[in-house]
Amino acid sequence: MTEKTLPFTKAQLETIIAKYPTPFHIYDERGILNCARGFLDAFAWNAGFKEYFAIKALPNPFIMKLLHNAGFGIDCSSLAELEIANMTGLSGEEIMFTANDTPASEFQRAKELGAIINFDDISHIAYMERNCGLPDLISFRYNPGPLKEGNMIIGNPEEAKYGFTREQMLEGYKLLKQKGIKRFGIHTMVASNELSPDYFVETAAIIFELIVEIHRKTGVRFEFANLGGGIGIPYRPDQQAVDMQRVSAGIRKLYDEVIVANGLAPLKLFFEAGRAITGPHGYLVAKVLHIKETYRKYAGLDACMANLMRPALYGAYHHITIPGKEHLPHTVCYDVTGSLCENNDKFAIDRMLPELAEDDIVVIHDTGAHGHSMGFNYNGKLRSAELLLHPDGAVSQIRRAETLDDYFATLDITEL
Amino acid sequence: MTEKTLPFTKAQLETIIAKYPTPFHIYDERGILNCARGFLDAFAWNAGFKEYFAIKALPNPFIMKLLHNAGFGIDCSSLAELEIANMTGLSGEEIMFTANDTPASEFQRAKELGAIINFDDISHIAYMERNCGLPDLISFRYNPGPLKEGNMIIGNPEEAKYGFTREQMLEGYKLLKQKGIKRFGIHTMVASNELSPDYFVETAAIIFELIVEIHRKTGVRFEFANLGGGIGIPYRPDQQAVDMQRVSAGIRKLYDEVIVANGLAPLKLFFEAGRAITGPHGYLVAKVLHIKETYRKYAGLDACMANLMRPALYGAYHHITIPGKEHLPHTVCYDVTGSLCENNDKFAIDRMLPELAEDDIVVIHDTGAHGHSMGFNYNGKLRSAELLLHPDGAVSQIRRAETLDDYFATLDITEL
Repeated sequence: MTEKTLPFTKAQLETIIAKYPTPFHIYDERGILNCARGFLDAFAWNAGFKEYFAIKALPNPFIMKLLHNAGFGIDCSSLAELEIANMTGLSGEEIMFTANDTPASEFQRAKELGAIINFDDISHIAYMERNCGLPDLISFRYNPGPLKEGNMIIGNPEEAKYGFTREQMLEGYKLLKQKGIKRFGIHTMVASNELSPDYFVETAAIIFELIVEIHRKTGVRFEFANLGGGIGIPYRPDQQAVDMQRVSAGIRKLYDEVIVANGLAPLKLFFEAGRAITGPHGYLVAKVLHIKETYRKYAGLDACMANLMRPALYGAYHHITIPGKEHLPHTVCYDVTGSLCENNDKFAIDRMLPELAEDDIVVIHDTGAHGHSMGFNYNGKLRSAELLLHPDGAVSQIRRAETLDDYFATLDITEL
Repeated sequence: MTEKTLPFTKAQLETIIAKYPTPFHIYDERGILNCARGFLDAFAWNAGFKEYFAIKALPNPFIMKLLHNAGFGIDCSSLAELEIANMTGLSGEEIMFTANDTPASEFQRAKELGAIINFDDISHIAYMERNCGLPDLISFRYNPGPLKEGNMIIGNPEEAKYGFTREQMLEGYKLLKQKGIKRFGIHTMVASNELSPDYFVETAAIIFELIVEIHRKTGVRFEFANLGGGIGIPYRPDQQAVDMQRVSAGIRKLYDEVIVANGLAPLKLFFEAGRAITGPHGYLVAKVLHIKETYRKYAGLDACMANLMRPALYGAYHHITIPGKEHLPHTVCYDVTGSLCENNDKFAIDRMLPELAEDDIVVIHDTGAHGHSMGFNYNGKLRSAELLLHPDGAVSQIRRAETLDDYFATLDITEL
C-alpha cells in the first residue's frame, strides 16, 4: 500500500492542535493554488476559459477568495451560495448560477448580482420572465439522456433530475431568440467523481456537436460552453488524478475539428470543478478517543459524521494516516468509528493500520470537498472548525467550531 | 393503495401556511400523546416500567416536555441531548445516558445531572473512573453478536460497533462489584425500524437469560433491563404498526417464566423508543415549486434533503398525500424531488400521484422521527421550522426556520 503524503509533520500538527483542539478540517493553501493554476494552465489555449469553483464542495469564503485571486469564478445553486459570492467580492459573469427547482427569489438575487443564469428546465424561461424578467445572457443545462452513460454517484443521465432534453434545447433557444435574447451559453454536467480523462473529452464531443446542430437549426451563436465538473480525485493511494493536460488536449482537438471547422469559434470553455480543486488538499484531523475490542477492533475518534459523511453515505474510501506511525507495519485491522450514535458512523471498515492507542492523531485525507459542507447535527453533534495552512506554515482559522448555542439557536426556550 | 389519514384538513393547512410559509414539519400532539399513553398502558403490569424517549429522533424540548408530562424519561447519547434533558426539566434517573465513543466531558455532565449511565464498552469503566469517578448505578449495553440476527438498517450485531460481548458483560459486572458498585442495570439495542413484535420478545428472552446467568456467576442483582428501541412504524400504507399489547404479553410471559421463577423480580423494564412514539405523528408540509418533464416527470418541491434525508440516505419510503386531491385517481408517475443540487435529493421515485400543479400542497408522512433532526445545510440549504398542532386545533411554532445569519454564524467575515 502506497502511503499518501501530508503537507505537515507530526510536530507541526501537534503545535496546531495545541491551539485548535481536534477535530478540525485543515486545508493546504499551497496545494489548492497549485491545483488551481494547473487547471487554468491546461486550458490557456482557450481565450476566455474560466473555471467556476463549485462552491457546494467547500462553501468557505476564505477559500473562495484564494481561488478568486487565482482567476476562478464561482458556481452557485442556492441563495446562500450567491451570498458567499457576494461577500467574497465576486459579481457579474464571475458568478454562474445553475438553477434546479429554484424559487423566484433566487432567480431574482442571481439577476441582481449579474450572474450568468443557467436554466435547468424549459419551464424556467416563463417562470423567470414572469417573476423577475429574463437576464441578457442565458444558458441551458443539457441532459443527454441515453446518449451518455452515467456513473455510480450521479446515476444514468436519463434517470437524473437535471437538465433539458435535446428537443427542449432546440425549442428553448428558439423561444429565447423570439424573446429578443442575444447572448447564449450551453451547459452540461453528467458525472460525479469520474477519473477517466476520456469521459470529459466525450462530454465535450456531445456538447460541441449539439452546438453545431442548434446553430444550424436556430441560428443561435454560443459565447460559451460549460462542460460541468465531476472531475474525480484519487481517494485511494493506487488511483491516479485525472490528467488535465490530456483532457485539455483531447478537447482542443475536438474544438478545432468541430467548433473552428464550423466557423463557431471563438467559444469560451467553462468548467465548474469543485472536488478536483480542493478535495485532495483538505484533511480531517482527529484523535483516538477509545480503543474497543468486541467481535471486531474499533478505533473510536473524537470526530464523527458531523464532520465527514461520505463514508457513511456512499461507503466512500478515505485514506487514513497516523502521523508518526506512517512507517510502522500496518498489521491491525480496525473499524475506525465516529462518536455519533448511528451504526453507519464509520470512517473506515476493515482498515489495516499500525497498532493504535488513545490520543493518537488520526488524519483522514481528501476532505477538502463535500466534507465539512455535508456535515449534519444529528444526535446533537457539532460541526468542527476549518483551518487554512498557509505556504509559510502559518495557520488561520477560517471557520470556528459550532457551539451548543449555535445548536440551540433556532429554539426559543423562554416559552418552554 | 390505501390512503393514509391526516390530522388536518386542506383548509386548516392553508390557514397554517398563511402564517408559517412552507416548508415546515408539523407534529400532531394528540397523536403523540395517544401513542405515548398506549405504550405505557401496555406495560402497566411492570412496576417501575419506564420509556426513555430517544431524543435523537426528535430533539425538540417542547416535544420532550409533552412526553415528560406523560411520564416518559429521556434517552441521551451526546452533550447536546443532555442539555435538552436539562432545559426540559428532566434530571436524575429520568435520564438514561448511553455512551458510545464518549468523551470524558460528557460522562462528567451525565453524572452531574444524575443520569443513569449505560456503558458501551468495558474500557469505559476505567475511563470514567479515571476522569470523573463512577456513578452509583451502572448499566452495560449488551451486543449479542451472532446470537441475534440484525436487520437492514442496523446490520448484524456482530458487525455493529455497539456494546459488550457476553464474556465482557460477566467480567465487567464482576469488576464493578469489586469496585463497590451496588446498583446495576442491563441494556441492549439490536434493531432499527423493526416491525415484527416477536423480534422484541426474542430480545427480552436473550436479556432475561443473560440476567439469570450473570446473577448466577457474579451475584449481581439487576434493578432494570432496558430492552432498547428500534420499534418500527408503518411507513407504507399496507404495513401494520407493531402491536405493543402483543409485545408486552410476550415479554410478560417470559418475565414470569425466567425472572420471577428465578427469584429475580422485581425487575423494572425500560424501553428507549423514539421513532415509534413520534414518527407517525410528524408531517413535512411543502408546496410544488416546478413541474418538469424530460425523460421522466418531476414534481419539484420547495423542501429538500435539508428537511428530510431518509429517502436519499436509505431509499426509504415516505407516503405522500396531496390535500384536496386525495380522492382523485393516482394516474401520473412522478419523481418527487427536492431543491438541493444533488441528484439523490428525491422524496419519492416512480410514485403514482394525482396530476400535480404548481403550488399544490404536498404532505410527506412519518417525518416525526429522524426527519428534521437529520437535516444538513449542504448546498447552503436551510432547515425548516417545526410546528406543533394542539388537540384544540391551535398551532405553536416550536422551532423557527433557519436564516442565512444562522448559516453564516460560524464565519467571521470581517477578516475576509
